[in-house]
Amino acid sequence: MRPFRDLIPFDTAKKILFENVNLIDDTEEIPLIDAVNRVLAEDAVSPIDVPPFARAAEDGYAVFAEDTFGAGQYSPVVLKITGRINTGEFKEVSIKHGEAVEVATGAMLPEGADAVVRVEDTEKDGENLNVYRAVHPGFDVAPRGEDIKKGTRILKAGEYLTPAKIGALAAVGISKVKVYKKPTVAILPTGDELTKPGEKMEPGKIYDVNSYTLSAVVIENGGIPVAYDYVRDDVRDIERKLINCLNNDLIVFSGGSSVGERDLLVDVINKHGKLLFHGVQIKPGKPTWAAIINGKLVFGMPGFPTSCLNDAYQLLVPVLRKMARLPEKKEMIVKAKMARRITSTLGRQQFFTVTLKDGLAYPAYKTSGAITSLANSDGYIVIPATVDLVEKGEEVEVHLWG
Amino acid sequence: MRPFRDLIPFDTAKKILFENVNLIDDTEEIPLIDAVNRVLAEDAVSPIDVPPFARAAEDGYAVFAEDTFGAGQYSPVVLKITGRINTGEFKEVSIKHGEAVEVATGAMLPEGADAVVRVEDTEKDGENLNVYRAVHPGFDVAPRGEDIKKGTRILKAGEYLTPAKIGALAAVGISKVKVYKKPTVAILPTGDELTKPGEKMEPGKIYDVNSYTLSAVVIENGGIPVAYDYVRDDVRDIERKLINCLNNDLIVFSGGSSVGERDLLVDVINKHGKLLFHGVQIKPGKPTWAAIINGKLVFGMPGFPTSCLNDAYQLLVPVLRKMARLPEKKEMIVKAKMARRITSTLGRQQFFTVTLKDGLAYPAYKTSGAITSLANSDGYIVIPATVDLVEKGEEVEVHLWG
Repeated sequence: MRPFRDLIPFDTAKKILFENVNLIDDTEEIPLIDAVNRVLAEDAVSPIDVPPFARAAEDGYAVFAEDTFGAGQYSPVVLKITGRINTGEFKEVSIKHGEAVEVATGAMLPEGADAVVRVEDTEKDGENLNVYRAVHPGFDVAPRGEDIKKGTRILKAGEYLTPAKIGALAAVGISKVKVYKKPTVAILPTGDELTKPGEKMEPGKIYDVNSYTLSAVVIENGGIPVAYDYVRDDVRDIERKLINCLNNDLIVFSGGSSVGERDLLVDVINKHGKLLFHGVQIKPGKPTWAAIINGKLVFGMPGFPTSCLNDAYQLLVPVLRKMARLPEKKEMIVKAKMARRITSTLGRQQFFTVTLKDGLAYPAYKTSGAITSLANSDGYIVIPATVDLVEKGEEVEVHLWG
Repeated sequence: MRPFRDLIPFDTAKKILFENVNLIDDTEEIPLIDAVNRVLAEDAVSPIDVPPFARAAEDGYAVFAEDTFGAGQYSPVVLKITGRINTGEFKEVSIKHGEAVEVATGAMLPEGADAVVRVEDTEKDGENLNVYRAVHPGFDVAPRGEDIKKGTRILKAGEYLTPAKIGALAAVGISKVKVYKKPTVAILPTGDELTKPGEKMEPGKIYDVNSYTLSAVVIENGGIPVAYDYVRDDVRDIERKLINCLNNDLIVFSGGSSVGERDLLVDVINKHGKLLFHGVQIKPGKPTWAAIINGKLVFGMPGFPTSCLNDAYQLLVPVLRKMARLPEKKEMIVKAKMARRITSTLGRQQFFTVTLKDGLAYPAYKTSGAITSLANSDGYIVIPATVDLVEKGEEVEVHLWG
């Protein structure tokens, strides 16, 4: 038997993991239309001015601003309409003093014009235009390059592509982007008792849950889950499957790490790589370990579904997002009052799952392994390692799932 | 020309849209492993007990609890070890009084046993076991069906599949789920000036931005974007493309809706369907319209990229999520102080984009159409239609993007 000799604090475990994460360096070129929520791998520089020409900001008439000076509601200036430019139309048109060209919003301005008189400030009279309002140079004109000048870096390598950033790339005509590849995450549940959902279950067995919850968490956090066959409680099977999955960016085992005689997994890991830690001062999640094998970060998570999923939220998510160069997950936290008095274990930081109702936080668990209770819970509170009691009515911060 | 005669308040526009959304009814069966963030279309009932057998909650020895009564640190009870059951192993083993069977965490309990003595409370002495601690019946035993009883409804139709809910389905052996189909959203930017990013741009043209930002927003909110060819400013082209896209669940036009002579789109919409509203008291987004054509909701959004994207966040996202039966988007709101005095237009609810720095909110825009400013902004503040001034230093709530 192997006791957890060196339980380490949660923050230390996180720090060690962060120090050992290799950020993804491989890139791929993908169509811009598919690039939302990806991470740009190179600076984006504008090959054009945006807008590429001076354009009208309103429907109206392009004029020399000077020609309108003195115009008023009862003293219109009269100009001659010499043409019209529609949005998207290219016309080599210029205006002279005393002339006006009709323009639609977004249409390019004719050569010479420096302002737009809005349509509602004018009256058309055959070929003549009565202008009832004076405008200054630049009025309702969006000058060339106003938004983006050619050669400007519009986005930096490493930026997370939101809809607005994708829009900025489209605006300068970029249709393909180089982004970092998504990390692949090998998922290897261990245990002779595991049966694949959908298959008939023999006596003494249970259905595999962790492949499904871990895959879902990986998908939600920018990774590609790669589900492997279940690892049997057998040294040779563990070694074979470990070696087989080392081509992935991150490897996650679940189960096979309790303090029992058959705790073979950690022995194999110790033989092939460097154990970073084994045992964390958290509840659930105490038997969590991490190792480096062939330069790859390997996680060992508890087999109990609720413990495994909590571990995934607390440790896998930040590590995976950092590896994928994604921004930290934004946490939604709401305040509530504890509906009941709860006790915690001194020396272990507890993630206590709760269900919210009418501003009160109720303990979510019937029993420790109850995945249904977790499924119906709203979030969790964090009880520090130094606290063993939360009183009924005490205000707590509930971290919402998702 | 057509003025916006009937600008309606933002909340009214939202209410009208919500009244006219058809929730998705079509379903599809997909593998559970791909079902995260989808919506369950039928109740899920457990075909089994979970756990399917009474099992050990810790490594130790399965015993009759009664046999341990009176055991203490200096007065062990001595039992006879008659076997071992590993996790996942099925053995038809039973125990008699005075006997103990070694069990691993998760292993099924032998017939007759009603408690588990933890390994750390025992000492092995050949075939004998010294028990140093008394346990009560049920101690460290997870009884059959403790988590889920066979026939129990574990999830309801309409539930949003989080990782934990997916775990609950896996736990009862479900490997495929019936979910609602994702709504398809037709995206039709209009305007003769539009050029597809990646293609050479002729003078007078601009690159299409809205197909890209709208697609990104649709993907992020559970829809499938379907990008159509640009609609020309021509009645017959508008009609042809409108009819061609009515097989989608939601249709979004952008552009072609300013108050100008060439405002053809709304004429076509009026001819083929029922306009719900045209003009909303918001800034940006005033020319927004919505209609019902052949029972389908059709949106008309402004052509200016920043106005279009704001419209997408304010109106398209809630409508699309409701249609897809997804929970409302969770908003992240932070408090900040305005770095500068800003003015707003009375009578229009303004969505004012800001950039956060050191707890201060700075106006993000250089100019109204600047997609790069939007791309580098952090969120927006809402200035009610009745407010025309926000003072420097005033506390505001910033709604963060994403």
